[in-house]
Amino acid sequence: MSALPPGSTIGILGGGQLGRMMSLAAGRLGLKCHIYSDVRGPACDFAAASTIAPYEDTAKIRAFAEAVDVVTYEFENVPLEAAAAAEAVAPVRPGPKALEVAQDRLAEKTFIRDLGIPVAPFAAVDNAASFDAAAAGIGGAGILKTRRLGYDGKGQMRIASAAELPGAFEALKGVPSILEGLVPFAFEVSVLVVRGVNGETRFYDVPLNTHKEGILDTSTVPSPIPPAHAKRATELAAAIADALGYVGVLGVEMFYLGADAPEPLVINEIAPRVHNSGHWTQDACLVSQFENHIRAVAGWPLGATERHSDVTMTNLIGADVDRWAALAAEPGTALHLYGKPEARPGRKMGHVNRIRPRSA
Amino acid sequence: MSALPPGSTIGILGGGQLGRMMSLAAGRLGLKCHIYSDVRGPACDFAAASTIAPYEDTAKIRAFAEAVDVVTYEFENVPLEAAAAAEAVAPVRPGPKALEVAQDRLAEKTFIRDLGIPVAPFAAVDNAASFDAAAAGIGGAGILKTRRLGYDGKGQMRIASAAELPGAFEALKGVPSILEGLVPFAFEVSVLVVRGVNGETRFYDVPLNTHKEGILDTSTVPSPIPPAHAKRATELAAAIADALGYVGVLGVEMFYLGADAPEPLVINEIAPRVHNSGHWTQDACLVSQFENHIRAVAGWPLGATERHSDVTMTNLIGADVDRWAALAAEPGTALHLYGKPEARPGRKMGHVNRIRPRSA
Repeated sequence: MSALPPGSTIGILGGGQLGRMMSLAAGRLGLKCHIYSDVRGPACDFAAASTIAPYEDTAKIRAFAEAVDVVTYEFENVPLEAAAAAEAVAPVRPGPKALEVAQDRLAEKTFIRDLGIPVAPFAAVDNAASFDAAAAGIGGAGILKTRRLGYDGKGQMRIASAAELPGAFEALKGVPSILEGLVPFAFEVSVLVVRGVNGETRFYDVPLNTHKEGILDTSTVPSPIPPAHAKRATELAAAIADALGYVGVLGVEMFYLGADAPEPLVINEIAPRVHNSGHWTQDACLVSQFENHIRAVAGWPLGATERHSDVTMTNLIGADVDRWAALAAEPGTALHLYGKPEARPGRKMGHVNRIRPRSA
Repeated sequence: MSALPPGSTIGILGGGQLGRMMSLAAGRLGLKCHIYSDVRGPACDFAAASTIAPYEDTAKIRAFAEAVDVVTYEFENVPLEAAAAAEAVAPVRPGPKALEVAQDRLAEKTFIRDLGIPVAPFAAVDNAASFDAAAAGIGGAGILKTRRLGYDGKGQMRIASAAELPGAFEALKGVPSILEGLVPFAFEVSVLVVRGVNGETRFYDVPLNTHKEGILDTSTVPSPIPPAHAKRATELAAAIADALGYVGVLGVEMFYLGADAPEPLVINEIAPRVHNSGHWTQDACLVSQFENHIRAVAGWPLGATERHSDVTMTNLIGADVDRWAALAAEPGTALHLYGKPEARPGRKMGHVNRIRPRSA
């Protein structure tokens, strides 16, 4: 298809901070946004229109899709029925296939493994009968995760041995789960790949990611990953994006096992949307991940992904945001706040990007 | 006063592209915007609320001011009565004094001259009786400008000699005008100064500006102005901002007469708002002029004004915008479109920022 002309409207399923930052990016390009969300969220304050209705209300979804020129989403748990209802009326990018795969950890891992791309050992845990085979499959310690709806460390239980599996399964309320083996990684990285409607892919520099209590804490570029392995990381991400027929920004989290490992990179998980580990692109690149996502879903040429500065992004979680005034005064620091009214523990309230002159 | 907390609402008088880019900048900071405009403009698509009503409707202005936490403006021709009506309810920043001075070229030139700051020779032209004295005052060629409501070269007539003054005055419909002497400048620069509620001032690098048909064409940093004179330029701008008790971004256009001139810098005009010659700050600085304006009017600490990249901003005027798809594909180029529906000749439709690694 040809590019949507300036003045077109991007429909966004989801009204959180990712939708807000997408909408702000669309504003640079002369586009506007229409938010669809089950609750009024921070994106609504920067949208030309908002529809607040359940994702299950297919009539409302259809009316929303009719009012826009293309539909995208800012979270991977958009009900497939909602995406399908929208797609009957307008293009949905990335497509429903990406949603389908990313919503179910078992489907995701299987999909990636079937591409010949390394993932941690995994096994389905559906009931007590699956305990022994699953434990044998990963061989020892691991993490039991619900197949659906987990994020930021929620819906996960670490087990030190097979003996702890029944308790963990019970703690997760016995819902269909996946047991993943632990990967002895040196550090964690991610690839932010953007893929255009014509199949072109571009990559941002690969950030080093650190976590606190299961939530992303910092993303830093450049990361210590050797250039050849950074290139390998982008190739793996591109293979996944290609296999999904993906359009937009895809976040691919990876474990880096070290330069001497036989297989240095193992996929952790994918996120079919702009990704928290790419927020640094707002201030260290000419075209941010948000703008490139909008460009891709609007059928536009992709923008520059090179970084002009080194940078560390740090999330502001919960009460971290109370320091906003001090952070706003800090030299070399860009402050991003999401406009959420209440700083609950574990809630992503904003982030800061601290930039430095580009090192190499 | 203390800083407005995140979640506060900035009221903006005016709904054009400057208001739109202010609103997008406010979005980064967790703030939101309410636009007041006599017509629905491109800012409205990114505002939490919009009031469309005449600027003369003081009841509507008052209700608008009651709904927001601070009021600012994006164009200098806000009626003083509207600013006064708003100020009775909420702080107006920059204050009405800046509007009063900037709305009348004669008041502006007089104000600057009385600060001991160089301006081009000027004289009032109110009627035929003032022709002789005005022509003598500037001594030869000059530009006759309406005192009010001129912009982008509109409301101006160049005269080669005193003999052309009557015809020019008639062409401007005999409205109160000002005759300005020509300044033999080497090139044009501007200062973007931001002044906080506490009186702190910060400056962006001084751009070199070029014009086409009376409209800004390009702004480039670094400019060829010697560092000592760039410093002098910022001091002049700060003196004006201080004298106005200014809060926010002030644009000060200056003629640079060359390193050997006895007085190298002469003020051309001031704009009590974010300024077109500062649009490059969006992509070459960590904190843009738009964000710093919002920070200042919200009582926040000012942000970083250093440039991380060299840059040339080029305006897209009228049909220039038809090239948007090619510009979007151009490496090293950030495209900004304003979302205006119709590309009329002379209309500012967008701009591009072409960045390069910082040279020095």
